[in-house]
Amino acid sequence: MKKGLLFVVSGPSGTGKGTVMKHLLETGEYFYSVSATTRAPRGEDKEGVTYYFVTRAQFEEKIAQGEMLEYAEYSGNYYGTPKFAVEKALAEGKNVILEIETKGALQVRKIMPEAVLIFILPPDIETLRARLTGRGTESAEVIETRMAQVQREVALLCEYDYAIVNENGKSEEAAKAIMGIAAAEKLRASRNAELKEKFL
Amino acid sequence: MKKGLLFVVSGPSGTGKGTVMKHLLETGEYFYSVSATTRAPRGEDKEGVTYYFVTRAQFEEKIAQGEMLEYAEYSGNYYGTPKFAVEKALAEGKNVILEIETKGALQVRKIMPEAVLIFILPPDIETLRARLTGRGTESAEVIETRMAQVQREVALLCEYDYAIVNENGKSEEAAKAIMGIAAAEKLRASRNAELKEKFL
Repeated sequence: MKKGLLFVVSGPSGTGKGTVMKHLLETGEYFYSVSATTRAPRGEDKEGVTYYFVTRAQFEEKIAQGEMLEYAEYSGNYYGTPKFAVEKALAEGKNVILEIETKGALQVRKIMPEAVLIFILPPDIETLRARLTGRGTESAEVIETRMAQVQREVALLCEYDYAIVNENGKSEEAAKAIMGIAAAEKLRASRNAELKEKFL
Repeated sequence: MKKGLLFVVSGPSGTGKGTVMKHLLETGEYFYSVSATTRAPRGEDKEGVTYYFVTRAQFEEKIAQGEMLEYAEYSGNYYGTPKFAVEKALAEGKNVILEIETKGALQVRKIMPEAVLIFILPPDIETLRARLTGRGTESAEVIETRMAQVQREVALLCEYDYAIVNENGKSEEAAKAIMGIAAAEKLRASRNAELKEKFL
């Protein structure tokens, strides 16, 4: 079976990437990989479904062994993507999506250079500000902090393979662009070296 | 205006790439670049349309100046692609297709690394042999020579960006695959670095 493709999608807060991801998952051709965490399971959590629950010592051992594709620490707990889960899904021919921030994305690129890195952008800075403000739940100060964070992330655009602008109300088009990228990436010569064998 | 894309398409004799190219040109979104040659103009030839006609000294000066994207010599005449003609069309936002053999394709890659190299393959070696034999115009010896040439060319597949199999009777699908590649390539982060500026 042909291996699936690994997509790493980043998009700053306010790009509307959640809706784009939703369209992709609905096609049934893209799958999220289950993350590992050191936080304690809660009511609805299911081992291997919501997360792989591990101890801090186990997580740090995985990091040391290069078994975490990417990870980060929030509020005293580790969260990350175990390599084996991604590799298993890819081997089953599934397209895997990791929706992670820029630092994690660049970690993945180092460990799995065949990953396809996609950056989702809002159409412009005014739209971004409107989207961040529109939620109405954050103070002006928090919004300014986020705007600065977006700028730091956008500065890394050229580390990515593709850049997609998520225009207002056109998240389906952005999802279709990603599907088009998937179709093209499947035709990459480097992913089809076995075609040579038929003729040699 | 956004620059066009440069496609370099190679496909050994018998891959049916001529028909694929025809579908692309019919869309009106892809253009051949006019070649330069040292052969004398004939009846139907028009300067700057069929070829740019130049002297041997002029052609060799262009080579020396790195002004030929690729060139080759057949039957004592030079044939090649002048860089200025390609760059002019790209600057006008046109997608340019160069249909050239592997050696020329790799020359282009060196001079214009942003070129998109596409290799078209027949579905299998039996189909290739049937297509070469089917023309009925060549001796068995000539066909074997061509088969050997195809194998030398296919060995270079991994130097290309994309590999497309031209299945029997499905040249329109192969053309659509190239159009899909074009759409994806337009979203490359490296071709859209200016998107960053809006946010910085």
